[in-house]
Amino acid sequence: MQTVTIKILAEKLKLSRSTVSKALSDSHEISQDTKKRVLAMAAKLDYAPNPYASSLRKKSSKTIAVVIPEVADSFFAQAINGIEAVAQDKGYHVLIYLTHENFLREKAIVKDIQNGRIDGVLMSLSSETTSYAHLHALFKKELPIVFFDRVCPGINAATVTTNDYAASYRATQHLIDCGCKKIVFLAISKSLLITGERLKGYQQALADNALPFYPADILVCKNDTAYNNSLITKLLTKPNRPDGLLSSVEKLATSIYTVCNQLQIAIPGQLKVVCFSNLQTAPLLHPPLTTITQPAFAMGKTAATILFKALKKGTIDLPNNTVVIPSVMLVRNSTSAIGTPFMEVQL
Amino acid sequence: MQTVTIKILAEKLKLSRSTVSKALSDSHEISQDTKKRVLAMAAKLDYAPNPYASSLRKKSSKTIAVVIPEVADSFFAQAINGIEAVAQDKGYHVLIYLTHENFLREKAIVKDIQNGRIDGVLMSLSSETTSYAHLHALFKKELPIVFFDRVCPGINAATVTTNDYAASYRATQHLIDCGCKKIVFLAISKSLLITGERLKGYQQALADNALPFYPADILVCKNDTAYNNSLITKLLTKPNRPDGLLSSVEKLATSIYTVCNQLQIAIPGQLKVVCFSNLQTAPLLHPPLTTITQPAFAMGKTAATILFKALKKGTIDLPNNTVVIPSVMLVRNSTSAIGTPFMEVQL
Repeated sequence: MQTVTIKILAEKLKLSRSTVSKALSDSHEISQDTKKRVLAMAAKLDYAPNPYASSLRKKSSKTIAVVIPEVADSFFAQAINGIEAVAQDKGYHVLIYLTHENFLREKAIVKDIQNGRIDGVLMSLSSETTSYAHLHALFKKELPIVFFDRVCPGINAATVTTNDYAASYRATQHLIDCGCKKIVFLAISKSLLITGERLKGYQQALADNALPFYPADILVCKNDTAYNNSLITKLLTKPNRPDGLLSSVEKLATSIYTVCNQLQIAIPGQLKVVCFSNLQTAPLLHPPLTTITQPAFAMGKTAATILFKALKKGTIDLPNNTVVIPSVMLVRNSTSAIGTPFMEVQL
Repeated sequence: MQTVTIKILAEKLKLSRSTVSKALSDSHEISQDTKKRVLAMAAKLDYAPNPYASSLRKKSSKTIAVVIPEVADSFFAQAINGIEAVAQDKGYHVLIYLTHENFLREKAIVKDIQNGRIDGVLMSLSSETTSYAHLHALFKKELPIVFFDRVCPGINAATVTTNDYAASYRATQHLIDCGCKKIVFLAISKSLLITGERLKGYQQALADNALPFYPADILVCKNDTAYNNSLITKLLTKPNRPDGLLSSVEKLATSIYTVCNQLQIAIPGQLKVVCFSNLQTAPLLHPPLTTITQPAFAMGKTAATILFKALKKGTIDLPNNTVVIPSVMLVRNSTSAIGTPFMEVQL
């Protein structure tokens, strides 16, 4: 089928191309009657404007990029739904790029999205990212950027996060209240700002309860399930094994439960577990998992809303946009005796 | 920062724009020395080509669209990873569009991606889609399309599916072997071809075991957890309640387990459950869930590979590309007595 162009519309309507073009862009120079005729013909012939030609003219691609570590993670899947809800409403396309927690891939993506393909960026850093030159370069391109969840230090961009420090402090205090004396903190990166915040909350809660902190009690995992399972197996088979685990990453819950099944370590009897997680199945695990649940949908929606405000204003200056949306702790049987009622703690 | 254009490169290098442009596209008309000089300057000034201008010239956007119901589903999340693995390798961008199981949204998306923004489409239909005019229109635009998982009937496009009929037959037979006499089939759509195939497998297994089929034993859920929970509650509190459930949709497992917890119905004692699901936590649920696990990553990868072959050839004609990749049944405690060893059944 032939693609319907403005030229074809103009021929059919016996109008000039410029008149058709102006009518389609709702110009005040064109009468209402002509606009109606043009739109009727455009609908009849199933005309759709060429987005690239249109982008060159308007310097807008009506597309935003979402750069995230992965989609096979409930937090990011729910955040995308929040972003999408706003983008759809604003008539924008969403380009999703996955870094798979890989720094080189993130660098290549950031290079690739520059110069015209997109109008703005929503981004959550890879766990490997420790240098930020590629992001500074992106920022200099005058593209509005909003970081969410895993934000970039030292860039004056808008950010949407949750209260990571408070959540981690509260989770650690909860494990201590449940009788834990040796709590290990699990992460997939030491460099991410959120890991840092969560680590600080954990350390402060230990200090406030006069419990010692040992650097060896931070277990740094990778984006590799087999590796993580063997690391956790080693941790749980050593003589002075922990009686509490605080995982700052959703997917590590699966590894912890799998290893405990294999080693026949009883949760919560021998080991209590809290995990930062938005897993829908957390209440259905054996035993139900105590989680710090992040406002993923709201974080995605808020980040997108800030970005679209900037796009509307035509500015990249997004001052004072540091939004923090609180998480919630959902206490279930992985930290407490069976029979304890479910408890929701606002953070 | 000023955007670096070919004009600026040409000025800096004291070359013509056309020479710079040809050097950048590795033309044989330009000497190796000049190419090296141009590339060195392009690297120094951090030049990146404008993709829209380039698209208009080459009539290629180096972008494919992936149109799927949602990402908060392990099957689609894993399929995206498969697609992405190929796209990244081929230097293509991936635009992800979510229909949220909504037919009108799917129609709007399909309209939107026509005319130049993308080079090809990978698609899995929404559960509401029962008419296909919008897809026929897309097909006529001479865009290569590969359907995966939820394919479109009556369009001669390439398809990648799993053996839905065989998997469903085997799952139903397994429930019957475990002693079930009244098995209810759960779906979120009656119109999808995969639902039809799974339904046929279920019905044939009942027939082959001389068990009656009642149309009321098909429970059609929606993309709405509260609605589904109340529908399943009704099903499990009626006098003649089922002793087996076969769910053709991953997310319904969460609803089934939640309702059984509330009603204190024991799985597998009072109710046996099999679910088409790629949930990572299936083995960790209480009890571990018997699943039909689909080759999600491989299906995404295969669909993308077929699409890129078509793009390379510059054809939309993809004959004999009906790929079926088998699923596997993973038997766990939701269908069998505790203590039964884990069993993997190739389908």
